[in-house]
Amino acid sequence: SKEDFDLAAIYVSDAQYNRNIFFDTSPQAATMLVELLCLLVFTIRLVHYAKVIPRDKFWKDPKNICIIVILMLTLADMIIYGALKATNYYALRWSRVLRPLLLVNVTEGRQLRRAFRSIRNALPQIFYVFLLFMFSVLIFSLMALKLLGKRGLKTIDGAPYFTNYLEIVFDLYVLVTTANSPDVMMPAYNASFVFAIFFIIYILINTYIFMSVFLAVVYNNYKKYLKEEVRQLVRAKRHKMVRAFAVLQEQREEGGGPVVTQANWNQVVRLVQPDISNAHRELLWSVCDDNNQGSIGKVAFVQLADLLNIEVITLKSRPHPFHSVCPAFYLSAPSRLLCRMVQHRAFVIMYDIIILVNAIFIGLDEENPMIANSEWVFLALYLLEILLKLYVFEPRAFFSRHSFWNWFDTFIVISALIATIVNSAVKSSGGYTSRQILDIVFILTVSSFRFRTIINTLIRIGPAILTFGQLIIVVYYVFAMVGMELFKGKVKFYEKDSGNPAGAYCGNPLLQGTDFAKLNYCKNNFNNVVSSFILLVELTVVNQCSGFAAVTHVSARIFFIIFHILVVIVIINIFVAFVLEAFFVEY
Amino acid sequence: SKEDFDLAAIYVSDAQYNRNIFFDTSPQAATMLVELLCLLVFTIRLVHYAKVIPRDKFWKDPKNICIIVILMLTLADMIIYGALKATNYYALRWSRVLRPLLLVNVTEGRQLRRAFRSIRNALPQIFYVFLLFMFSVLIFSLMALKLLGKRGLKTIDGAPYFTNYLEIVFDLYVLVTTANSPDVMMPAYNASFVFAIFFIIYILINTYIFMSVFLAVVYNNYKKYLKEEVRQLVRAKRHKMVRAFAVLQEQREEGGGPVVTQANWNQVVRLVQPDISNAHRELLWSVCDDNNQGSIGKVAFVQLADLLNIEVITLKSRPHPFHSVCPAFYLSAPSRLLCRMVQHRAFVIMYDIIILVNAIFIGLDEENPMIANSEWVFLALYLLEILLKLYVFEPRAFFSRHSFWNWFDTFIVISALIATIVNSAVKSSGGYTSRQILDIVFILTVSSFRFRTIINTLIRIGPAILTFGQLIIVVYYVFAMVGMELFKGKVKFYEKDSGNPAGAYCGNPLLQGTDFAKLNYCKNNFNNVVSSFILLVELTVVNQCSGFAAVTHVSARIFFIIFHILVVIVIINIFVAFVLEAFFVEY
Ligand code: NA
Repeated sequence: SKEDFDLAAIYVSDAQYNRNIFFDTSPQAATMLVELLCLLVFTIRLVHYAKVIPRDKFWKDPKNICIIVILMLTLADMIIYGALKATNYYALRWSRVLRPLLLVNVTEGRQLRRAFRSIRNALPQIFYVFLLFMFSVLIFSLMALKLLGKRGLKTIDGAPYFTNYLEIVFDLYVLVTTANSPDVMMPAYNASFVFAIFFIIYILINTYIFMSVFLAVVYNNYKKYLKEEVRQLVRAKRHKMVRAFAVLQEQREEGGGPVVTQANWNQVVRLVQPDISNAHRELLWSVCDDNNQGSIGKVAFVQLADLLNIEVITLKSRPHPFHSVCPAFYLSAPSRLLCRMVQHRAFVIMYDIIILVNAIFIGLDEENPMIANSEWVFLALYLLEILLKLYVFEPRAFFSRHSFWNWFDTFIVISALIATIVNSAVKSSGGYTSRQILDIVFILTVSSFRFRTIINTLIRIGPAILTFGQLIIVVYYVFAMVGMELFKGKVKFYEKDSGNPAGAYCGNPLLQGTDFAKLNYCKNNFNNVVSSFILLVELTVVNQCSGFAAVTHVSARIFFIIFHILVVIVIINIFVAFVLEAFFVEY
Repeated sequence: SKEDFDLAAIYVSDAQYNRNIFFDTSPQAATMLVELLCLLVFTIRLVHYAKVIPRDKFWKDPKNICIIVILMLTLADMIIYGALKATNYYALRWSRVLRPLLLVNVTEGRQLRRAFRSIRNALPQIFYVFLLFMFSVLIFSLMALKLLGKRGLKTIDGAPYFTNYLEIVFDLYVLVTTANSPDVMMPAYNASFVFAIFFIIYILINTYIFMSVFLAVVYNNYKKYLKEEVRQLVRAKRHKMVRAFAVLQEQREEGGGPVVTQANWNQVVRLVQPDISNAHRELLWSVCDDNNQGSIGKVAFVQLADLLNIEVITLKSRPHPFHSVCPAFYLSAPSRLLCRMVQHRAFVIMYDIIILVNAIFIGLDEENPMIANSEWVFLALYLLEILLKLYVFEPRAFFSRHSFWNWFDTFIVISALIATIVNSAVKSSGGYTSRQILDIVFILTVSSFRFRTIINTLIRIGPAILTFGQLIIVVYYVFAMVGMELFKGKVKFYEKDSGNPAGAYCGNPLLQGTDFAKLNYCKNNFNNVVSSFILLVELTVVNQCSGFAAVTHVSARIFFIIFHILVVIVIINIFVAFVLEAFFVEY
């Protein structure tokens, strides 16, 4: 019946695109900010869910319970905070740290929950390596204390160097992040070059070997997880195709298994992919029914989902027009050498380098006539490339329907040529124009065309990078909230024009004369969410935290060490593992 | 005959240990320093080789030709240098850069040549990604110029900020190495937080994504190379076993293939592994001859090399003495709970953490009585662990011949206990002793025992790390030589006690007031080989080079950029790929 075909078509189409209808009905682009700010929405959602979903199912789902607990804790926190503030006590909005958990627990956070699960699975192994890593840091600290502690060395600030064990542990931990290299080693190195060997061995073991081992552990776990995911996907695809087969099957011969006839198969394929050509469809059928029996069994039917994804392009091999017109010339030795040169890898690389040089020239001084005229040279080179390619490749194949990029390339070069001519005409008639914006657009498009293999890969991993973005934002949010509680208002930024002398020490006398103030880091503070987030990005790259320990207490360093462990050792490594895997699949 | 058996035994033994007799006759520990310094040795070697090896073979080997060319170039360089010096002209010992090539081209440099080959294979792909990466840096530089160039911003030194295109390119390149983060972004960030987003996107793309892609490309190539190597190894092993089989084979049945009888097989196995027990040998035979025919074919014989590598341990399962003596108590619920707890993973982790805390305590103030007495607590905990394990595991199995680590553990704890008792006795009788050295030894041994899985892996990758060490040293040597030509004597270090005022600006007025002098980096110079090497290690970690551009010319930065590309992007990534692969094999 019609309904059967529709149902089968839906199964096949789902299998073809690995869709999961149950989940995809809710929009993926989570309205994150709204969700973070508006607890009310969550309550309404939850009440709505509780009404729709059967009671026992609702209470069995840990997500719902988690949301209820968070909502209640937040409410309690708000009441306590209000009461304490009203009676002028010091109050802490501790529940803010819980907010990201709301984000993680809603349906739209599925990707995010998956990423969290992947981290949780890797944690025991990471912890084990981390223990050994901490041992190594501690042993090296002990050795440093014994080697350097009693030599009376001083740092540039005149403070005693490597005399306190816990300070040494912290300094050597920061050395792993490379933030205080080479400063931490200079006093010892100035005393004798022999001590430099100690630091070199330390860096080799703890920065290079251990950080690689962390990556190895995280990557290994990630691969395991990914394999399981692919296995599930394949299973789901097969399951759907089997269900489609069950709808369409009929018993043809006695004793034989159930089959799908060519007529039914054709109808389903036409429903799934209405724009498929008859030739293409018949090709697919002949692949499935390789014994020419007029019907196919389950095994042959199941592969349809993958077959539909294969793109079929018909290519006609035609000789080059020059070849037909004047073969003696086109087949002569110099002409053939030219063809070989243009088809060589080095030709592509040469033009890549030409574009690179062009990109350098664009940024240089516009007023210099040599640089201003160089654009003509570059344009001539680009035109030459197109002409050479047209000479070597058959023009109709070069400009065929499927060779989108060749069209694009020619279009870009010709429009750049026109723009340059128009521009120089306007300029010579006295009008002012800036070529550079035009040039940037040009270089951007040309280079994006050149490197489309890599760029396509980067674009393909884009959505997953967004998942990592969410993950990072959740973790940053928690640290921003804790950081704001700990350090809010301790470091202040004054505009340069304000003339306030406190600007020289970030509004905190404790920072007077410190590197933090000298390097003008005052805007790196936890005073609001935006600057907290920017500071956390900086801390991810280089863990600079001496300023915050100075304005509060030495133990504030623990906050920065935990941040480094969680973000750099765990999350950034997962990100690297992810990029690695994405590239291995592509290459 | 006896000779046949000996020959077969040598083949099997070679296959078992993947030995390659032809290469292993020359000592691996290359006498590197001697080889570097003494050209004469090379000449003598070469003359000797030329006499021993047939003439046509000698001239076909690129290694020999390479050595001859280098020797001749070095000689020419020495003559030119001497002549120029004699006539008081400026002379350059340029041939020094070639010296490492000598090291690479001798027989002992086989590992090193292999590493170089692996790099050379990866270069085209790295170059392609590098082009795109440079594009990205250039495009971001152009955008930075447009965004920030005309706002009149100033750096902390009061210099104009982001107005020169090539300066921006360099600054953003250094940002990729994280060396100038967050300083390079602070002026823009101070102007408006919106500009921080520009830098965050830049870091995401160029520091995180591109550096991961470089790792991916290098790693991918490395894996390919490794697979080929393993394949060759397996082939060589098979080849040797087939030759051993050819020596021993006999025709037993008519029409059947050649076989090796059990008697011959036994004789060979006894020759290869004289200490093998009869039971073990019979077990191996029964694995090979699974049809009990008294003889084995080629296929079964070939696997002998792998079978010999399998360790066979006989374990007797005996009940615990407590179980036999008083089962009611030993099998009671609390006793079984205790057993389960001790066998749980958390028990191991708990004790790992206890050792970690112990390592922290050792470094703290010895005079504090609480800390001084804590060692008794730790010792009691370690003793408790051994007692608990003896309670749970069968003591004879725990202290069996194969459980070396259990013996070791018990020995360490008991000797630490005795040492602590002796020490406190000496102390209470007024003698001075330092417990800390003892403690460090103790912690080192205990932790090495604890983490033996990871440490074994690290030890196993040790020899390969040495190969990388050679590779790095060759590259460092070239850069040290070039660096010494460019920067020798430009930066000088004065001892603090010398009282020379030039020490404040490293003996070069151009450095007066620069960060380089302020941070006391004077000893980071290229004045001799040792300080050059230490400086290059520092540059590998964090690419700090502003000082050297200041004392010579802006273009000196090119030296540091090339160093970063070669060492960090190529070699360090190969190192990371290598550690990753080593861990994937182990885990
Ligand atoms: Na760094």
